Amino acid sequence: MISEFELINLFKDIGSEYYKENGVIIPPGDDCAILDLSDPLITSVDSSVIGVHFPKDANANDIAYRSIAIALSDLAAMGCKPRAFSLSVTSNEKNESWYKDFSKATREIADEFKISLIGGDFTKGPLNINVIVYGTPYKSKVLKRSGAKPGDYICISSEVGRAAKGLSDLLSKNNSKYIDDYLRPKPKFELGKSILEYATACIDTSDGLLADLEKMLTASECGAIIQLDDIPITTGIDDINAGDDYDLCFTVPKHFYNNSHYKIGEVTFEKGIKFNSSKGYDVSIIGYEHFKK
Amino acid sequence: MISEFELINLFKDIGSEYYKENGVIIPPGDDCAILDLSDPLITSVDSSVIGVHFPKDANANDIAYRSIAIALSDLAAMGCKPRAFSLSVTSNEKNESWYKDFSKATREIADEFKISLIGGDFTKGPLNINVIVYGTPYKSKVLKRSGAKPGDYICISSEVGRAAKGLSDLLSKNNSKYIDDYLRPKPKFELGKSILEYATACIDTSDGLLADLEKMLTASECGAIIQLDDIPITTGIDDINAGDDYDLCFTVPKHFYNNSHYKIGEVTFEKGIKFNSSKGYDVSIIGYEHFKK
Repeated sequence: MISEFELINLFKDIGSEYYKENGVIIPPGDDCAILDLSDPLITSVDSSVIGVHFPKDANANDIAYRSIAIALSDLAAMGCKPRAFSLSVTSNEKNESWYKDFSKATREIADEFKISLIGGDFTKGPLNINVIVYGTPYKSKVLKRSGAKPGDYICISSEVGRAAKGLSDLLSKNNSKYIDDYLRPKPKFELGKSILEYATACIDTSDGLLADLEKMLTASECGAIIQLDDIPITTGIDDINAGDDYDLCFTVPKHFYNNSHYKIGEVTFEKGIKFNSSKGYDVSIIGYEHFKK
Repeated sequence: MISEFELINLFKDIGSEYYKENGVIIPPGDDCAILDLSDPLITSVDSSVIGVHFPKDANANDIAYRSIAIALSDLAAMGCKPRAFSLSVTSNEKNESWYKDFSKATREIADEFKISLIGGDFTKGPLNINVIVYGTPYKSKVLKRSGAKPGDYICISSEVGRAAKGLSDLLSKNNSKYIDDYLRPKPKFELGKSILEYATACIDTSDGLLADLEKMLTASECGAIIQLDDIPITTGIDDINAGDDYDLCFTVPKHFYNNSHYKIGEVTFEKGIKFNSSKGYDVSIIGYEHFKK
């Protein structure tokens, strides 16, 4: 059984090398942490629950990495720079090695993105990980969900359905390159930063391309026509409803589109999402209640 | 079964009246919220787990109020002004009225402290509430755990053991004034603000007076002599190990002590906590392993 003291020691200095650049004035150890950001604070919280957000037998390394990565993805979707994070872990694990593995992967992702762990809370109970992320804008602009304009192109940066294929391969013990797409999604900070100047709206694809696209269009009070043939897929056209990819879906004015990303459709004045295909995709397959207007 | 849309609607405008004064630039609804604080950010996260932090049959109103109050208490202990909070709720409740009650009490405490709800996450799973609080300093100073000096008086503001008595009364269905001390603790913002100028160290008493005092003394690299006879108790001297009071325990230089609070001892150069009693309290009762040096 690991003691509270040992637990705190495993985590207390994660990302401390970056305290100065991240504006951490008072690190973990007091009632609160203090950050001097000199910029607006961008923040979000994400929970990961066992059996919902990761398989019951996932190991502590992957649970830690994935929980933190998907929380960071929200900052990437705003076109923001990650600075710090807090970690609230509820677990019934008694094995010290579980916590060691968890802290190792936490340190790994903190180093990967040069972010500082500024707080946390450990409690006993069914596994539940909450990650709070703190960031600041790279420039004076951030990427919001609202802002897409009729005529803008709708873009994504990689194939949809990779994570769903990875989860399926993981569960069927079929070793594949997609497993890391599920277990270790990479928050797209570089992409968010690179489109910041000209993108009109952006969202990260956690619930599935279509579900998240619809949220962005609703926030922007627009609709879209989607070219199913142009969507890069992993397994089949159903991938457009597959979750967990954590890519960015964004809109750009036509004259800014430069072929570096996949263009999958166009924003329309008329609300709702329409589909087009000349490859023979049955567009009715996508007609979930959810998307009907 | 409550839909995600209905859930979001229950919570989305909580504390929106205070967006402007709290610096909320982008409210909930995007990938992240944005706060322009113009001051250092003070932040903390607290989880409340069913069966650990509240009884299994606690109602949604009390669960919401208590979870948020105990997170805010950490800001109060730093002598800070609360500005905003985020809420991450994992629950298997299917009943819409549970969520309505939860949101009602969330709105109640948001209005009580004029704070804005800036984000949240709802997931399915065993009940687990995470509250993230965001504050700023009232003045250029904050109250840290470190800073107590030998010779300083150690003070608290109210009787210890009220919450433990309340929990006990609640569980034995014995109606008493103490039940609210347990279910609805009041974060001591006014107290924190009033001692800000002269207090040398401060902590909130969540784990019990002695356990938390020890943390403050460790951070301050000092010890203490405690006058057991001077501790205001509810049930008995064991109350000094009773948790959940969420009072502030703080140290003040002797010449600033003005009789407005209970003085319970003095900081010493020598580390460790010593006890004194002429009322005949058996000071050995306090000799938990935890406190032995």
